[in-house]
Amino acid sequence: MLPAALEQVIEALGSLPGVGPRSAERYAYYLFRSSPKISENIATSLINLHKNVKSCPVTFALIDSKEELSPLYSSPDRDKKTVLVVEEPLDIFAIEQTHGYKGTYHVLGGAISPIDGITPDKLHITELLDRVEKDKVEEIIIATNPSVEGESTALLLQKLLSEKFPDLKVTRLARGLPLGVDISYADQITISAALENRTKL
Amino acid sequence: MLPAALEQVIEALGSLPGVGPRSAERYAYYLFRSSPKISENIATSLINLHKNVKSCPVTFALIDSKEELSPLYSSPDRDKKTVLVVEEPLDIFAIEQTHGYKGTYHVLGGAISPIDGITPDKLHITELLDRVEKDKVEEIIIATNPSVEGESTALLLQKLLSEKFPDLKVTRLARGLPLGVDISYADQITISAALENRTKL
Repeated sequence: MLPAALEQVIEALGSLPGVGPRSAERYAYYLFRSSPKISENIATSLINLHKNVKSCPVTFALIDSKEELSPLYSSPDRDKKTVLVVEEPLDIFAIEQTHGYKGTYHVLGGAISPIDGITPDKLHITELLDRVEKDKVEEIIIATNPSVEGESTALLLQKLLSEKFPDLKVTRLARGLPLGVDISYADQITISAALENRTKL
Repeated sequence: MLPAALEQVIEALGSLPGVGPRSAERYAYYLFRSSPKISENIATSLINLHKNVKSCPVTFALIDSKEELSPLYSSPDRDKKTVLVVEEPLDIFAIEQTHGYKGTYHVLGGAISPIDGITPDKLHITELLDRVEKDKVEEIIIATNPSVEGESTALLLQKLLSEKFPDLKVTRLARGLPLGVDISYADQITISAALENRTKL
């Protein structure tokens, strides 16, 4: 019923995560009504995506294809003896925005979730163990998400790391009340953690 | 901080309506992790969009560039003496899915909204008046949205049409309770309309 080229845009955009047919229709019609420049911009950027972005072979952060290593690893300003472990590359971005961390990163590539087929061997765990040895790492900060999968991954990492490197310091991000959340709405686990880890004023 | 090519995808996708930086990041990272085929599909479909889709010069519906007129107008199965007037081309799609309408369509290209700069002369109203004359139209069904803008547009159309064609039948879609909405949640205007237009069981 719709022109084939429009249907193709709707179908293609509908393959994005969380974009249903209604949103895809809205995007497609918006693009049709807007300047062709906008569609061209998106098309060009997508064509370049896989060509110009790759994973850093050491930290698995996303980097420009022409770079060899992530600048957050290779820069002399970064302390290689501290490694912050995250699930996904974009988590790095969130932490870098705090401007409060000067160590390096390691991207696991997800969290353990047997139901989704993500077993420990699918994550970059051996590469992390190798790094600890090679870079003489002194502290590993585990920053997996506070979800069931993130917690299991953190526990596994802690076990593997402490077995292999008994002197290594393994920490994780603090649990507590986030900014702007009313105490009456916070869940029990968060409140328990906030109580337990209370800080001196 | 992010690779330039990834930033470009995030920025480009962020130009879609209602897509904020967080969603754009999620889409970009999803595309990077998925097969390049998916990104290519989107890119190709976008490049073809403006090339292969145009507006029908009579009804302003969206059609394949190689077609001259909308098949919903040129087909002998469609009754040219009845014209259903909608705001946007995708509204046609919603009405066609009911399989209950055999007339033709006319797309206004929006609804009157002075605050957004959409004055009556920006809409395809003169073209509609011409069509009434040329196709000897007997009924105009106004199907603008039940919003302030849609209602003003409907009133204006009704005024212009009845002034110029006193014998023309001008109707509009019925107001009433939609499927699945609890009466206690329906607004007063809808309930008033549903009462007034009650049908015999």
